[in-house]
Amino acid sequence: MGDGRPDRPNCRAGTQEMRERYLEDFAAGQIFGSGRLVIDKERIKSFAAEFDPQPFHLDENAAEDTIFRGLAASGWHTAAVTMRLLVESEIKPAGGIVGAGFDEFRWPRPVRPGDELRLESEVLEVRPSKSRPEQGLIKVRTTTLNQNGDAVQVLIANLMVPRRPA
Amino acid sequence: MGDGRPDRPNCRAGTQEMRERYLEDFAAGQIFGSGRLVIDKERIKSFAAEFDPQPFHLDENAAEDTIFRGLAASGWHTAAVTMRLLVESEIKPAGGIVGAGFDEFRWPRPVRPGDELRLESEVLEVRPSKSRPEQGLIKVRTTTLNQNGDAVQVLIANLMVPRRPA
Repeated sequence: MGDGRPDRPNCRAGTQEMRERYLEDFAAGQIFGSGRLVIDKERIKSFAAEFDPQPFHLDENAAEDTIFRGLAASGWHTAAVTMRLLVESEIKPAGGIVGAGFDEFRWPRPVRPGDELRLESEVLEVRPSKSRPEQGLIKVRTTTLNQNGDAVQVLIANLMVPRRPA
Repeated sequence: MGDGRPDRPNCRAGTQEMRERYLEDFAAGQIFGSGRLVIDKERIKSFAAEFDPQPFHLDENAAEDTIFRGLAASGWHTAAVTMRLLVESEIKPAGGIVGAGFDEFRWPRPVRPGDELRLESEVLEVRPSKSRPEQGLIKVRTTTLNQNGDAVQVLIANLMVPRRPA
């Protein structure tokens, strides 16, 4: 409707078509949301037991006397959950979400048991590759927010995206 | 032996004493190793199913036709395993490993099933805090290497470390 392509059968087909985005489909200023995911207390502890076994991620009582002043998710747990939400979001670069490096990566606030996380991803830049004409890079700032709208992670990533095949 | 402190009962006690390092115990140029951890194929897939469900991390056959040309661990899995090795290494800042931001973070090579990972962490800089006299920052480059000595992750982190109590 109003996009000059009235032959599309319905919105659903339009969505299907946009499932995979090529470099030409991205533009600075685009914003993509995500689903939501609640961080479970037991998963905080089991993730930490495997990957980040420190008192502030493992045990409520031990966590009280640490810099976190209470149980907090490992930052790597927050990062992993962010990736899950990003993969399932509508950003969907063709060929997958493949990072070519990060410009910024920080955890401004701890994630607590029961926090509900969601993402806001903004395209900051779209650059065709000079050396590889079949692809390019998009720079995307993905902010992970809790239920209060506070940022718990900020990640600026450069993602490899193929150009639309001729 | 030869460190001017002959009153130490034995090496073991010396190790115990160094379990927690304060800002004063770190110096640029120090290098810390780590244990080793083998990346299991099934764990690559189950980690990806929960946190990074993309074909190149989930299924050998589907991975063949992707940019990775075969099954590869999620970068977030590599990052999480790196954290495990770091927590168990001898770097041990007092109060735990608490990141205050990253200067660099990249995955130069994929991690494959059966790869055995280990770390080399080099202290690049030690800075007392101007605003908070009880703590400081150390900048550490942690390189994650596979069994061939190839870097699979490079992370330069700024870690908060307390000063030794007076």
